[in-house]
Amino acid sequence: MTGFPPPPDPSVLRSLDMEWIRDEGHLSHVVVSSRIRVARNLRGYRFPPGADPDELQRVLGEVVEATADSWFKGWHVVDSTRMSGLDLQMLVEKHLISPHHFRASAERAPGRGVILGPRGTLVAMVNEEDHLRMQCLLPGLDLERGWMLLSAMDDAFEQRLSYAFSDALGYLTACPSNLGTALRASVMLHLPALGLMNQMETVKQMIAGQVGLAVRGMFGEGTGVGGNLLQISNQISLGPTEEDLIEKVKSITLRIVDQEAAARDQLRREFAPQLADKVWRCLGILRHAQVVPAGEALELLSMVRLGVDLEILPVMPRPTLNELLVSIFPASLAVLEGEVSDSLQGDMIRARRIRQELAEKGTV
Amino acid sequence: MTGFPPPPDPSVLRSLDMEWIRDEGHLSHVVVSSRIRVARNLRGYRFPPGADPDELQRVLGEVVEATADSWFKGWHVVDSTRMSGLDLQMLVEKHLISPHHFRASAERAPGRGVILGPRGTLVAMVNEEDHLRMQCLLPGLDLERGWMLLSAMDDAFEQRLSYAFSDALGYLTACPSNLGTALRASVMLHLPALGLMNQMETVKQMIAGQVGLAVRGMFGEGTGVGGNLLQISNQISLGPTEEDLIEKVKSITLRIVDQEAAARDQLRREFAPQLADKVWRCLGILRHAQVVPAGEALELLSMVRLGVDLEILPVMPRPTLNELLVSIFPASLAVLEGEVSDSLQGDMIRARRIRQELAEKGTV
Repeated sequence: MTGFPPPPDPSVLRSLDMEWIRDEGHLSHVVVSSRIRVARNLRGYRFPPGADPDELQRVLGEVVEATADSWFKGWHVVDSTRMSGLDLQMLVEKHLISPHHFRASAERAPGRGVILGPRGTLVAMVNEEDHLRMQCLLPGLDLERGWMLLSAMDDAFEQRLSYAFSDALGYLTACPSNLGTALRASVMLHLPALGLMNQMETVKQMIAGQVGLAVRGMFGEGTGVGGNLLQISNQISLGPTEEDLIEKVKSITLRIVDQEAAARDQLRREFAPQLADKVWRCLGILRHAQVVPAGEALELLSMVRLGVDLEILPVMPRPTLNELLVSIFPASLAVLEGEVSDSLQGDMIRARRIRQELAEKGTV
Repeated sequence: MTGFPPPPDPSVLRSLDMEWIRDEGHLSHVVVSSRIRVARNLRGYRFPPGADPDELQRVLGEVVEATADSWFKGWHVVDSTRMSGLDLQMLVEKHLISPHHFRASAERAPGRGVILGPRGTLVAMVNEEDHLRMQCLLPGLDLERGWMLLSAMDDAFEQRLSYAFSDALGYLTACPSNLGTALRASVMLHLPALGLMNQMETVKQMIAGQVGLAVRGMFGEGTGVGGNLLQISNQISLGPTEEDLIEKVKSITLRIVDQEAAARDQLRREFAPQLADKVWRCLGILRHAQVVPAGEALELLSMVRLGVDLEILPVMPRPTLNELLVSIFPASLAVLEGEVSDSLQGDMIRARRIRQELAEKGTV
């Protein structure tokens, strides 16, 4: 294996000032983030599920070598099997790697890597299900720019790597469901008003009823709709062009943004006192509680964010809320505050951190 | 009818600075208040349930005349049928008259009156179930002093009134269950730790298992244990002396005070973080909520009071909590803040009042 740089200081990855968390984007009051990912595989190697350790190491070596290109200047090239489980889990919580890649890396499976761009906007996993899984993650609704940025990374890799591609099937992937464009465009939506109006199931069914779209919870398949967060993505990647796929996700997103806006209007019109009560109580609990599990923190922050968006609560910068949202998860919290001996202690540290953050950066 | 003074300015009764609410008493951390009442009837008149209107008016006249004695200087002598329903209900909420007397007065039944001493410590209802129902209400555990003060009022009335009394049966009363001493001694206990430990039913059964004792909720028979408040009183008044009856209530009270103290110790020892979380959350909700029904306010204040007593929450004067406790009930609230058109508006006004009181007099 050639050219693998020394592992970066963990504190660098830990304190990464991520764009999707820190910046405001288009329709940020509903669209938390936009994400595009593509899968690529190198010609001449078996796909990771069928490859032997040596093959996977050679793939990683090729990919790492490709990042020697000046295009990747300032990037972090990481042998993820040398990262601590905690740091890996933190990358999952920040949506930089998949739970699958976390597990493989934590179990020290051979040839796993992470190639991470500045501000976490662009990232590639090496030897997840495919040799290369690249994503672009941006705040707000910004799929087109995401695709543009991702294409640039894709092109930079392609300068030095030979992709497995078929004229008939497009990009070849480990799982047939990714054949073709191998592209998945997704958005993370925050739908607190639809949640309060008990319309979340209706929305999910409406999306699921559209051919080629999938709907999931915050952390992907099989996770529930916590904190009123919903992920929508295209399910089919073969047939339409990248632009068509992105357009489809964007257009359903705009419809749901409208529905959420209508639900917010209705809440304001018909349930103003109850709505004010709800969001103020959630803020009060966050400001006072001493023991807060992550799931509850997510629900409370969801309501506070709604209250801020509707100007019921005093102004609070959205990045503060996003940072809180990410920092409440166990690994991110442990990275910030130190590891804990049990979940009660973790819930106490989470509560303290939330109280401090709200007192420092939040409302009076 | 002779000597009935003009009705007092309602604002006098409304702003009464009541001793049981304002002052601290013995074991106030558990015993909210002590109450002694006796029933008396005038010789030569039928008991109120069987008397005709004229008879009731004459009884009221006699009682009012008796208050001309200098002993009653500074007292309020009130024709309660001339009070507004709101003011009457407020007297119920302050534990100065019974719901039964409220209804009769509000329905303008003849001959109903209220004789109210300074600071609400002593009060007599005229023509409730008996011609005279006198009570002494004090903060903390103070039944002996209550009996001493009540006896003085009883003696003052007896100077000018002729009581129905039988050597065999003692004081004669409308209901046979009150025969004899016609005395009821009761205490209002605040048992939040026993409530949190789910031991309230055990405590109730323990009390109910004692011959001659009864246990009830905050507003007497048939009311539930709201806000972890429990009322204990003697059930039998015939046979033992007044002192024996009082001793019996006092002794069970001391046992329950010990049980509550043990439960508080256990909570502090074994569930310190959860307890701190609970009381801080309740304070947070009270400080932030915009809509608070009376029953919920009672539960929240119960927890805040526990937190203050255990020094988990910053010091807050107990009278502030007692005042809040009384002011959250609908009529007291309406008297303070004006009448409301519906219960939602009332719940909003209650929430605002609690927020203001806690901000002004409460903790930082």
